[in-house]
Amino acid sequence: MERAYGFDEVAIVPGRSTVDPEDVDIKSSIGDISLELPFLASAMDGVVNPEFAVSMGKLGGLAVLNLEGVSTRYENPAEVLQEIISVPKEEVTPLLQEIYKEPIKDELVAETIKKMKKGGGSACVSCTPLRAKRLGPISRDAGADIFCLQATVITKKHHSHEQTPLELERFVEEMEIPVIMGNCVTYEVAMDLMEAGASGVLVGVGPGAACTTRGVLGIGVPQVTATMNCASARDDYYKKTGRHVSIITDGGMTVGADICKALASGADMVMLGNTFAKAKEAPGRGYHWGMALPHPYLPRGTRIRVGIMGGLQEILLGPAKTDDGTQNLAGAIRLSMASCGAYNIREFHEKSTLIVAPEIKKEGKIYQRAQSLGMGK
Amino acid sequence: MERAYGFDEVAIVPGRSTVDPEDVDIKSSIGDISLELPFLASAMDGVVNPEFAVSMGKLGGLAVLNLEGVSTRYENPAEVLQEIISVPKEEVTPLLQEIYKEPIKDELVAETIKKMKKGGGSACVSCTPLRAKRLGPISRDAGADIFCLQATVITKKHHSHEQTPLELERFVEEMEIPVIMGNCVTYEVAMDLMEAGASGVLVGVGPGAACTTRGVLGIGVPQVTATMNCASARDDYYKKTGRHVSIITDGGMTVGADICKALASGADMVMLGNTFAKAKEAPGRGYHWGMALPHPYLPRGTRIRVGIMGGLQEILLGPAKTDDGTQNLAGAIRLSMASCGAYNIREFHEKSTLIVAPEIKKEGKIYQRAQSLGMGK
Amino acid sequence: MERAYGFDEVAIVPGRSTVDPEDVDIKSSIGDISLELPFLASAMDGVVNPEFAVSMGKLGGLAVLNLEGVSTRYENPAEVLQEIISVPKEEVTPLLQEIYKEPIKDELVAETIKKMKKGGGSACVSCTPLRAKRLGPISRDAGADIFCLQATVITKKHHSHEQTPLELERFVEEMEIPVIMGNCVTYEVAMDLMEAGASGVLVGVGPGAACTTRGVLGIGVPQVTATMNCASARDDYYKKTGRHVSIITDGGMTVGADICKALASGADMVMLGNTFAKAKEAPGRGYHWGMALPHPYLPRGTRIRVGIMGGLQEILLGPAKTDDGTQNLAGAIRLSMASCGAYNIREFHEKSTLIVAPEIKKEGKIYQRAQSLGMGK
Amino acid sequence: MERAYGFDEVAIVPGRSTVDPEDVDIKSSIGDISLELPFLASAMDGVVNPEFAVSMGKLGGLAVLNLEGVSTRYENPAEVLQEIISVPKEEVTPLLQEIYKEPIKDELVAETIKKMKKGGGSACVSCTPLRAKRLGPISRDAGADIFCLQATVITKKHHSHEQTPLELERFVEEMEIPVIMGNCVTYEVAMDLMEAGASGVLVGVGPGAACTTRGVLGIGVPQVTATMNCASARDDYYKKTGRHVSIITDGGMTVGADICKALASGADMVMLGNTFAKAKEAPGRGYHWGMALPHPYLPRGTRIRVGIMGGLQEILLGPAKTDDGTQNLAGAIRLSMASCGAYNIREFHEKSTLIVAPEIKKEGKIYQRAQSLGMGK
Repeated sequence: MERAYGFDEVAIVPGRSTVDPEDVDIKSSIGDISLELPFLASAMDGVVNPEFAVSMGKLGGLAVLNLEGVSTRYENPAEVLQEIISVPKEEVTPLLQEIYKEPIKDELVAETIKKMKKGGGSACVSCTPLRAKRLGPISRDAGADIFCLQATVITKKHHSHEQTPLELERFVEEMEIPVIMGNCVTYEVAMDLMEAGASGVLVGVGPGAACTTRGVLGIGVPQVTATMNCASARDDYYKKTGRHVSIITDGGMTVGADICKALASGADMVMLGNTFAKAKEAPGRGYHWGMALPHPYLPRGTRIRVGIMGGLQEILLGPAKTDDGTQNLAGAIRLSMASCGAYNIREFHEKSTLIVAPEIKKEGKIYQRAQSLGMGK
Repeated sequence: MERAYGFDEVAIVPGRSTVDPEDVDIKSSIGDISLELPFLASAMDGVVNPEFAVSMGKLGGLAVLNLEGVSTRYENPAEVLQEIISVPKEEVTPLLQEIYKEPIKDELVAETIKKMKKGGGSACVSCTPLRAKRLGPISRDAGADIFCLQATVITKKHHSHEQTPLELERFVEEMEIPVIMGNCVTYEVAMDLMEAGASGVLVGVGPGAACTTRGVLGIGVPQVTATMNCASARDDYYKKTGRHVSIITDGGMTVGADICKALASGADMVMLGNTFAKAKEAPGRGYHWGMALPHPYLPRGTRIRVGIMGGLQEILLGPAKTDDGTQNLAGAIRLSMASCGAYNIREFHEKSTLIVAPEIKKEGKIYQRAQSLGMGK
Repeated sequence: MERAYGFDEVAIVPGRSTVDPEDVDIKSSIGDISLELPFLASAMDGVVNPEFAVSMGKLGGLAVLNLEGVSTRYENPAEVLQEIISVPKEEVTPLLQEIYKEPIKDELVAETIKKMKKGGGSACVSCTPLRAKRLGPISRDAGADIFCLQATVITKKHHSHEQTPLELERFVEEMEIPVIMGNCVTYEVAMDLMEAGASGVLVGVGPGAACTTRGVLGIGVPQVTATMNCASARDDYYKKTGRHVSIITDGGMTVGADICKALASGADMVMLGNTFAKAKEAPGRGYHWGMALPHPYLPRGTRIRVGIMGGLQEILLGPAKTDDGTQNLAGAIRLSMASCGAYNIREFHEKSTLIVAPEIKKEGKIYQRAQSLGMGK
Repeated sequence: MERAYGFDEVAIVPGRSTVDPEDVDIKSSIGDISLELPFLASAMDGVVNPEFAVSMGKLGGLAVLNLEGVSTRYENPAEVLQEIISVPKEEVTPLLQEIYKEPIKDELVAETIKKMKKGGGSACVSCTPLRAKRLGPISRDAGADIFCLQATVITKKHHSHEQTPLELERFVEEMEIPVIMGNCVTYEVAMDLMEAGASGVLVGVGPGAACTTRGVLGIGVPQVTATMNCASARDDYYKKTGRHVSIITDGGMTVGADICKALASGADMVMLGNTFAKAKEAPGRGYHWGMALPHPYLPRGTRIRVGIMGGLQEILLGPAKTDDGTQNLAGAIRLSMASCGAYNIREFHEKSTLIVAPEIKKEGKIYQRAQSLGMGK
């Protein structure tokens, strides 16, 4: 059995040369759409609604809206969210099972996308493969810029006796806009998705320890190993075709250090749910729930209270008011890359070295005299 | 020293292809008796009585009744169970030592088996090798369908100066019905038991960390490694003889993920005690105690309160009301197998890959947007 | 760097054959003195006084009395012990520093040994190398049967500019009675001690995590590896000379499982402090303190309350009233050896296999249906 | 990925020969300045002010004063420290951000150094590379004996588009006095710094688990591996040039054992912050804060209450009143070296062996009968 590694088990070795963090460029792209910041917000109802997507776009990131969430099922999703947030914890699961039975309306899909585009940024929407044949074309026609095809586990070769599975290649062709696909964790599947035409590949099945998928199904690969697997497929695919596909590590990151490690492992960008659920702009107003929770047979996840930590700008660009690695995520990435001598994310992939260095919790903490690396002051 | 692995240390890697969970078949068999579900209930007095066995059989699983428990010692076992459940914790050990001194009655053995068969399902009963020569034939004649020969550690070559050990081969021959034997954890012993004629082999000595056998005797092998060892013996034995013996992982599993990992490690089915002790139908009514507890010299285990979690149907087939992996175990297995592209348990053995991926507890949990894998909704 | 293992990280694999625990012989020996049970009690003032030594001898074990403790410094040690037990915790260190300044009296040494021999058992006494030239001959002449030369770390080659170090070979020759030496943890030092004439070698420097030596000095080797190292020296020394030296694992064991693992790692016997401090017969009456505590410059350890768990007989021979592996230690060893098919400790060395199997604490404990291995019932 | 090790994961194996701890010499040196004790105090405002430096020098160690702290910004630093200590925790970060905006005054730099030299010891001062061109010459001219160039991560090849980076070689030449540089964690960077003329190299980036740099940036290498890396560069550099550069392990050590392990890993001396912050002589009077805390964009660390443990003499030379490894650090080093048969630190490097031996926390602690190693008594 091969050993796989998660964020808590590795550290980035500082480089032989260093650069000024002010000179570090953290731009990224999906297909021909470029982003100032390598951050995507997860397609969850507590995280992304059209207004959040507009705010995110203005700051340089990208929010993904879930087309199977409340925005496309209800005329007034704010009311429904209020209800979800208000009920006692023990009533959440049946309430969500009920709420998500409401059919998705084509006209709401189109309307939602239009609202997302009002801020001038890109509109990125997501659905599961089962509904893609219906919702994909509607989204494209409504002006979506990027489409995201997402399931717990996706493969090019899904078999079913009852339903005709989605043919990924044909779907990409018909969509015309860039398609992100996921989630996957192995070289083979990442390669299959790239060959099927994906512009971005989401990495992450059962990341982190608390993940419901790993606890219920036993399925999962820790994110450092999963990202390395898929990044390796990206590099080989690029050598073969000259086309760069973005690797997006999705899930399992709680602090800036985790994000830095995802990028050092080969990710081009990261997708965050929990972090953005804590933003003042998030529709969940301090609450958060997984999209597998309303599952009729095997609900997974629950509504959790994450609290409101600050504005999106503070989280992304700082200045940080706390020292726990949850604010000024862009600054943390820049400083981490600078200490490895990397001017951009691709150089970071090449120049950074990871070591296996498990975190050991100690009661008597030592605070380091971490002095400035030439960054301001 | 070789490294051995437990459930908490491994994860299942999703496959390159996936299948529709509705198409997944989780049937299993012991000898010529086939089972709809790969679940056995442990031969413990807090878990299985004849009524429980009938319920379990109707749902497609198999309950094993302990012939050395209260059912065969007392005319009115319900009364005795009530007493065990009622006494204060500190009085449990002496009470149980007293209760289990009562002799086993031949006529109660036969009667118990007849009660088990009333529901139309199979009757499976269990005793230790010491009592097998006496209780085996009585059980067979009373109509038992499967016999289970179980000790903490069983081997084909037990030596004693005082007692003539049971000859396993001859016992199997005389029993005529399928015989399950265990527990064991190594290739060699599993092979010995198969060669002695076992139709099923129970795997597990000291599984899990809290296990008394490992704490008191230091003996034990973590379940993933133990299951792999024995499954490898099964495969080699099958190649040599064409006879398929079922590997039954017994103990150490608390959630659906553990069961999925046991099957991915090579088990054909699993035996659960704690899980079924929580069923509304269990005779322990929320209590549970090990069969080593009444040991006169070296009692191990204690009575524990597990609570009542729900009906057997909910536990086995769902729908789940919780997200902790303790309900709809069959659904969890189907979904896990589906994500590895396996249509049945043997395909799961071949197609699944396990990685070493220790669970790390994190305070700030991230709930994954685990979306549906094409399963209904 | 080589990986070393402690008790918590390994488990004993059950054997291919098993034997009846009633047939298992756990006798042991030091030089020409044989012992019914492979247990030594540590030379600590809270554990061993002459009366305790008599009780221990009657049950078949061996207690080691510290010649640098209160028994040889005070006419009435019971009074002094009472004082140590009675003062508030914060006054213990200075009190002990004071108490152990009282000179050791030759006549008390002789008297103490005579008291130890009254029960008809063997008298084993211990001192540090610094005092051995003086206390050794007195002890021998007073009738001591075994002498124990013990320091945190002992080597054959101790260098000092101020004091002439003890020459171990000459000391052994002059003592005539068997000499135990320790502590050590490596093959080389164990071999050196055997070549210097040791009849027993104590194994253990900084065992267990809470050990003060490891926390203060960073020195230590986990006990499974240390025992394997020294047992390997014993085997090689035996092949070369035909003389069997006993390996005695000392420290770090809290439950029966740890003792079983020490023996499976190659120990001929074990030395226990904490366990016997809990005996009703122990002079510390539920309290316990390390002999490094009164150190004038660098005190290590403290007085701890261990409580009184039961009589020595219960601890050694049972029947056990608890299931936590702290009672009937002899029964636990027998059952563990039986499950590996070993009739005596040397066979256990040969037949047992250890695997690396870290203990993982789980909240939802599963109690195993650990059934009897043919042991009575 | 290579595995890296921290203090908690290794232990020192006692040697084949031992020496009398009284004979052990723990002298050390930086350039041509020799030190009685291998201890440096960290350049932090809660730890070192001129008075503390004088006390430290008298006892044989060396305190490093931060030239970017309050001593050189304020006429009356005691007042400012009082304010930092007095404000409620939530106001600390903005207060510090404010306090450290005050410009550094050249005349205060010179004055501070003169105060440090009043006790007759060496004056060692520290600043970041950004300010070295200005503060270096002032310090030298004011009589500083050693200069310390310190950043979270230092390299010989720092690149910036806005500022001309410091040329390390030229700086060393101009300073004339010995220059310590750091921090670094790899062979390559340590070698680069030695080649640039460093007399001492500080080792440590993100040591310990609680370190903010590792949590925020993901950057770090555990200290045992980092020290081994840099010590290996020192040995190779010495072979090539005949010049001995001191390796100074900085951070992550909480108890004597950690310090012993740092030296056994190859360090010539250690730098401690937390430990000295607990001294009665420390200016923080029981409080402590990282120098990265006032960072305007990405503050890291916080003010923590460490308490006052005793006088500097007690901490360094004992006698110890506690058994937790925080007092008589020199005694602990001597005893540890003695048990490896090492007369001085270089012999300790050669003679000591480290093993991987993770610390496992156990509830039922066993206190070892750690007896005296011939050290007094």
